[in-house]
Amino acid sequence: MPSPEPVFDTETHVSLQLDDVGRLRHLLTLKGLEKSLLIDILDDAVRYLGPPGAMPVRSRALAGRTIANLFFEPSTRTRASFDLASKRLGADVLNLDVNTSSRRKGESILDTIQTIEAMRVDIMVVRDASAGVPLYIARHVSEHVSILNAGEADVSHPTQGLLDLLTIRQHKGGFENLIVAIVGDVAHSRVARSAAQGLHTLGVGELRLVSPPAMAPDADEMPFATIVDNLDEGLCDADVVMALRIQRERIGNLDCIPDPDEYFADFGVSLARMKRAKPDAIVMHPGPMNRGVEIEAAVADGPASVITEQVTNGVAVRMAVLARVSKSLQSR
Amino acid sequence: MPSPEPVFDTETHVSLQLDDVGRLRHLLTLKGLEKSLLIDILDDAVRYLGPPGAMPVRSRALAGRTIANLFFEPSTRTRASFDLASKRLGADVLNLDVNTSSRRKGESILDTIQTIEAMRVDIMVVRDASAGVPLYIARHVSEHVSILNAGEADVSHPTQGLLDLLTIRQHKGGFENLIVAIVGDVAHSRVARSAAQGLHTLGVGELRLVSPPAMAPDADEMPFATIVDNLDEGLCDADVVMALRIQRERIGNLDCIPDPDEYFADFGVSLARMKRAKPDAIVMHPGPMNRGVEIEAAVADGPASVITEQVTNGVAVRMAVLARVSKSLQSR
Amino acid sequence: MPSPEPVFDTETHVSLQLDDVGRLRHLLTLKGLEKSLLIDILDDAVRYLGPPGAMPVRSRALAGRTIANLFFEPSTRTRASFDLASKRLGADVLNLDVNTSSRRKGESILDTIQTIEAMRVDIMVVRDASAGVPLYIARHVSEHVSILNAGEADVSHPTQGLLDLLTIRQHKGGFENLIVAIVGDVAHSRVARSAAQGLHTLGVGELRLVSPPAMAPDADEMPFATIVDNLDEGLCDADVVMALRIQRERIGNLDCIPDPDEYFADFGVSLARMKRAKPDAIVMHPGPMNRGVEIEAAVADGPASVITEQVTNGVAVRMAVLARVSKSLQSR
Repeated sequence: MPSPEPVFDTETHVSLQLDDVGRLRHLLTLKGLEKSLLIDILDDAVRYLGPPGAMPVRSRALAGRTIANLFFEPSTRTRASFDLASKRLGADVLNLDVNTSSRRKGESILDTIQTIEAMRVDIMVVRDASAGVPLYIARHVSEHVSILNAGEADVSHPTQGLLDLLTIRQHKGGFENLIVAIVGDVAHSRVARSAAQGLHTLGVGELRLVSPPAMAPDADEMPFATIVDNLDEGLCDADVVMALRIQRERIGNLDCIPDPDEYFADFGVSLARMKRAKPDAIVMHPGPMNRGVEIEAAVADGPASVITEQVTNGVAVRMAVLARVSKSLQSR
Repeated sequence: MPSPEPVFDTETHVSLQLDDVGRLRHLLTLKGLEKSLLIDILDDAVRYLGPPGAMPVRSRALAGRTIANLFFEPSTRTRASFDLASKRLGADVLNLDVNTSSRRKGESILDTIQTIEAMRVDIMVVRDASAGVPLYIARHVSEHVSILNAGEADVSHPTQGLLDLLTIRQHKGGFENLIVAIVGDVAHSRVARSAAQGLHTLGVGELRLVSPPAMAPDADEMPFATIVDNLDEGLCDADVVMALRIQRERIGNLDCIPDPDEYFADFGVSLARMKRAKPDAIVMHPGPMNRGVEIEAAVADGPASVITEQVTNGVAVRMAVLARVSKSLQSR
Repeated sequence: MPSPEPVFDTETHVSLQLDDVGRLRHLLTLKGLEKSLLIDILDDAVRYLGPPGAMPVRSRALAGRTIANLFFEPSTRTRASFDLASKRLGADVLNLDVNTSSRRKGESILDTIQTIEAMRVDIMVVRDASAGVPLYIARHVSEHVSILNAGEADVSHPTQGLLDLLTIRQHKGGFENLIVAIVGDVAHSRVARSAAQGLHTLGVGELRLVSPPAMAPDADEMPFATIVDNLDEGLCDADVVMALRIQRERIGNLDCIPDPDEYFADFGVSLARMKRAKPDAIVMHPGPMNRGVEIEAAVADGPASVITEQVTNGVAVRMAVLARVSKSLQSR
């Protein structure tokens, strides 16, 4: 009989993410992290990107370290991105598909974590469909282990947030005078939450969350953002447009999933609607995309799209985070 | 809602497989590749084989390179063979089981490919159950990426063809005076097609495709081969006999799958039937084998069998192909 | 049509496990291995453990070697432990999830093994739900390959046995004056059998197998042990208590699985029951644990528990075994 899972707490304390001397130890959420730390990570990521067209930058910064990818939810892109980031830093990588084995035998998350930890794993990259799991794990691992959140329910996806910040900075130079519109299923999106938190910390000019009412976040969740229920209004003069996938797997009542054609007509980011945005606006999407639903193919593949750059930046940002938390490990 | 998959084109243009200076860039099919190129690959593979009994030859030819195994169809042996070939050349390997994640979320093949490419993957090894997918991908990847076909519907399996050629050359010295009989479900076999194309290019003496009528290829598909519907006739004086598995997964109408005992009686490669072949004939099989159906256990495990050598040659041939396409990458 | 699987023989001959000069070549069972060999392996493992808190010991002892993990039964902890042990010795690792591919196509175990072997794999780590499979494989592989049993039905799990021995020795110094109680579903437990065999060879003072009658082993299977059907009696003055998970997946008749609460009341290792044991008794569990069934959470997480040390020792013991069998390979 499986042990009952604990009730998870989603209130993250910044202090848990930093070590005694203020360095990043865990990355659970961007919420509450200092502006200077976010900028340092982006600057490191730029170094890991290297010049365009060159072979990927490699280092031995994590040689001798072991990184475990614990994906309790399936993933191709984020798992692959962490896998490559780890290997390009010289680490040993352990890929665990946790669904298929121990949980079947009734093991608790904590026992799984303590088992992996006891194999002298240094960094655990965790994705889970339940809110609070990364924080819960971070609270319980020994002082020799770092936890990186690779996607947590609809709550947080901090490395995705960082890659979004990096992509915006590359194209727009900074954040202070920008209008950023995040469009679609914001309510169920960890991507939107992490991007919004990071943009807020970096002092974005204006942040708009553009959704049909059923997909809008609570009005008091992100007081620094404007909630807009009309796409034309949301895109008006925007510098950055981020389209989101409808998170069908997190919408309990299937009747609440809109008809794709109707949704595209109202909230699809199309060439026609993009005329409202600034002429040099960029379009982002966390992937995987559903063309013809939340984004028009002509936009996804057009000159304004920076979607594949986001993927490239993802590996660099993850290398930067891995290398940074490993410095915290070295001093223990 | 998933994007509709494009209609795939199976006409491969040789030019796409070679770069501007005539070097191999993609390997999609053996059809149309020059004899001298095939021989160069076989010669490279011999060097990677090393002396019998020694530890496998290793090099750093692909150090710093990233190879992604994208298997949209399950595979043990081919996936393992590419995995080891890549690691023995010093590459980083990303194994992606694509069925279980992004496709579920409705992502198109092209988006998956562009995502993997954006992580700075150099070589993608692709297996897919649909004809035309490797060509389609090769047409759409950026100029920094090579595509290797690791099995495409019933159309092509070029590295299997190369390992078959290498195995025959090791035992018979050459091809010009040989009688080669490919026996069984030729119609549904990518293995047979790639072997036949390679043997034709290398000037095989006589090629016989030996099948019951329901498993024979169209008469005009391989005009250089003789179609035979009688096993005794097909094996007569053969130097090389290649038995094929019945590809149940590609036969739509289950009533068309013959009774195993009856099939063995008519087309099973047995010791008794092998008496028709030359006394020093070799027996090949691409695996996995169904003993007692297309091949008798006494033949599979007997002195004429070169089936495990085929597997060993498979790793060497894949090392040769990986190292060769990476030279094309270096000059870009 | 799949080939019929052979009838497997579970009588292991020690001679098969040793090479011509008496070195360990395969590890199939602890049964019959010499005391001095077991102690040598434990001593090697201590060296691979390194000092507490330090980064894991790494070596290049297996550089150029290829290790294949062939798990025909799902596993997280043992697979991960062998994976890390192999990587920390510098080997190339091939992880094969054999259920999902070739077996579906009807390939026999032996063909799978010969295929992997032909790719020049040096060591195969095998887990299988059928008794006799590791021995059967060891009998059929070529002289260049070692087989390590990573869990065989209810028969044997020798590296688990070794890590249990190491953990006991670390805490108790030796075995001769110890009372060891193995508690729970002994009948279906390969863990219990391997631990019992190793403890017997190392001269344990007293070994008690403590189970309800339906989970007790046959009286004549382990004549060196005492079978006890009462927990208080079994724990009396024990130095070491090993709790076992109920192996539901190996109990055919589901009516025979006891009610968890009732089972806990009768055979659960709780703080209250542990008062019968010696004050400095240690508590072990092979994992995954079902807290509240075979073990109380307060015991699993209490000061007597050495459960996470067992996991750490598991990696070290597997490094020791891998390095040792590779010495046997070198001389061939």
